[in-house]
Amino acid sequence: MTNEKIPYKIYLEETEMPKYWYNVRADMKTKPAPLLNPGTGKPMTAEELSQVFCTELVAQELNNTDRLIPIPQEILDFYKMYRPSPLVRAYCLEKQLQTPAKIYYKFEGNNTSGSHKLNSAIAQAYYAKQQGLKGITTETGAGQWGTALSMACSYFGLDCKVFMVKVSYEQKPFRREVMRTYGASVTPSPSTETAVGRKILEEFPGTNGSLGCAISEAVEAAVTRPGYRYVLGSVLAQVLLHQSVIGMETKAALDKYGIKPDIIIGCAGGGSNLGGLISPFMGEKLRGEADYRFIAVEPASCPSLTRGKYVYDFCDTGKVCPLAKMYTLGSGFMPAPNHAGGLRYHGMSSILSELYDEGLMEATSVKQTDVFAAAEQFARVEGILPAPESSHAIRVAIDEALKCKETGEEKTIVFGLTGTGYFDLYAYQKFHDGQMDDYIPTDEEIAKSLAKTPKLS
Amino acid sequence: MTNEKIPYKIYLEETEMPKYWYNVRADMKTKPAPLLNPGTGKPMTAEELSQVFCTELVAQELNNTDRLIPIPQEILDFYKMYRPSPLVRAYCLEKQLQTPAKIYYKFEGNNTSGSHKLNSAIAQAYYAKQQGLKGITTETGAGQWGTALSMACSYFGLDCKVFMVKVSYEQKPFRREVMRTYGASVTPSPSTETAVGRKILEEFPGTNGSLGCAISEAVEAAVTRPGYRYVLGSVLAQVLLHQSVIGMETKAALDKYGIKPDIIIGCAGGGSNLGGLISPFMGEKLRGEADYRFIAVEPASCPSLTRGKYVYDFCDTGKVCPLAKMYTLGSGFMPAPNHAGGLRYHGMSSILSELYDEGLMEATSVKQTDVFAAAEQFARVEGILPAPESSHAIRVAIDEALKCKETGEEKTIVFGLTGTGYFDLYAYQKFHDGQMDDYIPTDEEIAKSLAKTPKLS
Repeated sequence: MTNEKIPYKIYLEETEMPKYWYNVRADMKTKPAPLLNPGTGKPMTAEELSQVFCTELVAQELNNTDRLIPIPQEILDFYKMYRPSPLVRAYCLEKQLQTPAKIYYKFEGNNTSGSHKLNSAIAQAYYAKQQGLKGITTETGAGQWGTALSMACSYFGLDCKVFMVKVSYEQKPFRREVMRTYGASVTPSPSTETAVGRKILEEFPGTNGSLGCAISEAVEAAVTRPGYRYVLGSVLAQVLLHQSVIGMETKAALDKYGIKPDIIIGCAGGGSNLGGLISPFMGEKLRGEADYRFIAVEPASCPSLTRGKYVYDFCDTGKVCPLAKMYTLGSGFMPAPNHAGGLRYHGMSSILSELYDEGLMEATSVKQTDVFAAAEQFARVEGILPAPESSHAIRVAIDEALKCKETGEEKTIVFGLTGTGYFDLYAYQKFHDGQMDDYIPTDEEIAKSLAKTPKLS
Repeated sequence: MTNEKIPYKIYLEETEMPKYWYNVRADMKTKPAPLLNPGTGKPMTAEELSQVFCTELVAQELNNTDRLIPIPQEILDFYKMYRPSPLVRAYCLEKQLQTPAKIYYKFEGNNTSGSHKLNSAIAQAYYAKQQGLKGITTETGAGQWGTALSMACSYFGLDCKVFMVKVSYEQKPFRREVMRTYGASVTPSPSTETAVGRKILEEFPGTNGSLGCAISEAVEAAVTRPGYRYVLGSVLAQVLLHQSVIGMETKAALDKYGIKPDIIIGCAGGGSNLGGLISPFMGEKLRGEADYRFIAVEPASCPSLTRGKYVYDFCDTGKVCPLAKMYTLGSGFMPAPNHAGGLRYHGMSSILSELYDEGLMEATSVKQTDVFAAAEQFARVEGILPAPESSHAIRVAIDEALKCKETGEEKTIVFGLTGTGYFDLYAYQKFHDGQMDDYIPTDEEIAKSLAKTPKLS
């Protein structure tokens, strides 16, 4: 079908939807470093992990060998409600840029959670239900993950307890209300509900909270309640596995029209979207079957890949989680308060960290005013109001397309449009009012934060 | 293809998308009553209308004869960015209701404007651009129409001036911000920018504004600026014409799988969504080719069809617009302040009014707490967070499906899901907090408001 006209949106038929998640670790020669027990310094066993996480998810977390993992039928049925997501040819953006490049974006905002996070949320809720659990706990920052998990839990009739970073809880009351609509309970973090929350509040009274704090609280809430487990929306290998549905669909849609991308771009906070999008393409690259450029785009205010160190570090502020080897800015690192949107985690998925370290993937960082300028430009021609996170990828896609304009190259660029910006209009407003600035951490600040990583690696 | 399994979502291929709007007036034996000049009491001429509206749109407004009107290529190209919209089989809702009914919804919320309003906004902006205008003015209440028009104007490089009902402007700052992202200027109404606004402010200092006021201001702003025209997002025949793309796609998708609906349900404020959804089906009914039940659902707090009178009335508060014959509650009617969401216009499209008056369509009204209960129920199983407006249709679709459960009938129900509720979470919050009540206007209130309709009909 190579010569067929490429439609604006490539939809797959239900029958063309992927039935497997793709596990990129199976094709990696050097596997990502294992999670370590912070007490013993030894790799976490399945038994240890199962006290915090659902049993089947632990198995997925530790599975470095199976390339394809069947998606259970009930998850496939849920996916059918909002997937396949469209792969859109950005004809209007191309025209505006007057670029010979061909730009495609995989749009994951077409579900009420408003982002790609639902792909893993429904999987994690499913396995929790299978295990006979009563409920699950989690943290949320910008709110995309909490929203997605609330939806998923509502679908399976699971209790859902969300610790929401306090500053987001207060600034985004509507995010909280969506979660409530889906029946979740939402607690601003740090809270007095957990020992670790009380300790943090004692040490930093009046703190606005952080993702690291909220993780600590959610983990404690899970392990101290019978019938509960903790779930996480990014960073972990299992999450990248579930998110591979994005990449599998993208590849199937491109293959359907005989299109081979040159550059694949994704925003990167913990790595869930980027990891999912690139997985099957990276597999081809690892197996020597094809070559692609992969670009991770991170905020200049939280540049874990581009300015962090590849070491073992704590995943949370309260240090109750296992240690992960990752590009990190140090678990105490906090992006400047004026940083809008998500992508504010101090570390990066161990899988992506390893791929980046081996030179299989590039990374770049962008300033947030440049990001919002790209967001607005994109919205005006392509219609979709993008999330700030997604707009990091838009920025670099536009920049790459403009390079093609200079060189005359007809490159094919694919980027992940992870979600919509309906709950981020406060940030858009700041941008419009000229009140948004770009704080970039100094080398000293990063070094100071990195000095506190544990001495293990 | 009758026996093929019905997918969760029926998408049409780009090549299957309708290339024509369907003009239901061509099949109506009794044509809708013409707009009248309030000064002379005579039908408005094309010349008179062209001082307010774009020339080509006036032609469409007066066209009672052409059944199919070709959609210009540039509009088709824009439609391709977000259309065809999915027709979704509500398998999960059916399962939850344990109904033998088959429920489908046509989901129009998959674009950044978040609603079906974009279908007409892009058409109206296109004709304004073709006419060489500099810009257009409009009003918006809940904000869906203003958002859609801002997007459309941004696409065609037109100036867009929106008068937003003051109470919405203040309660929905993020709606305003979306419009700003698309480059529109947004003025809270009533304002001191227009003579009619100043007059209203003088008479009612501290007023929260109303759709009727905002229409008057937008019309004045258009006729007093060279190169500007006024556009309206509902009520008019041209709007129903553009919105027929919803019904045309729905019919094409159902025909593709050999499905014949028994009941077609839509929410009704001014009538744009309902009119668009039912048009081609109503055409079959008018031509005696098929029979369907059509149900218009309106809020109990603004019941123009179910409790209004079918007479000529003013379209706006300032009485600067032509008179329209319609089911109306009187141009001074205001729904109770606790009424959430849109569907608050005092009158109903002349086309739908005529069809209803002839008994070709049913109408019912629902209380808002029942509407939000249906919205939440739907969200939890189907995933989509519906707009309050759309949830009126959900309420009645659920009620009809539950009747089928009692009788055992396997009816096929189709309803219009016009948009998403991301900007209505304040109302959801009130519902969750038990602070939402149901005010239903008394007969006396309606009679008092109706007493002021002009003595013409």
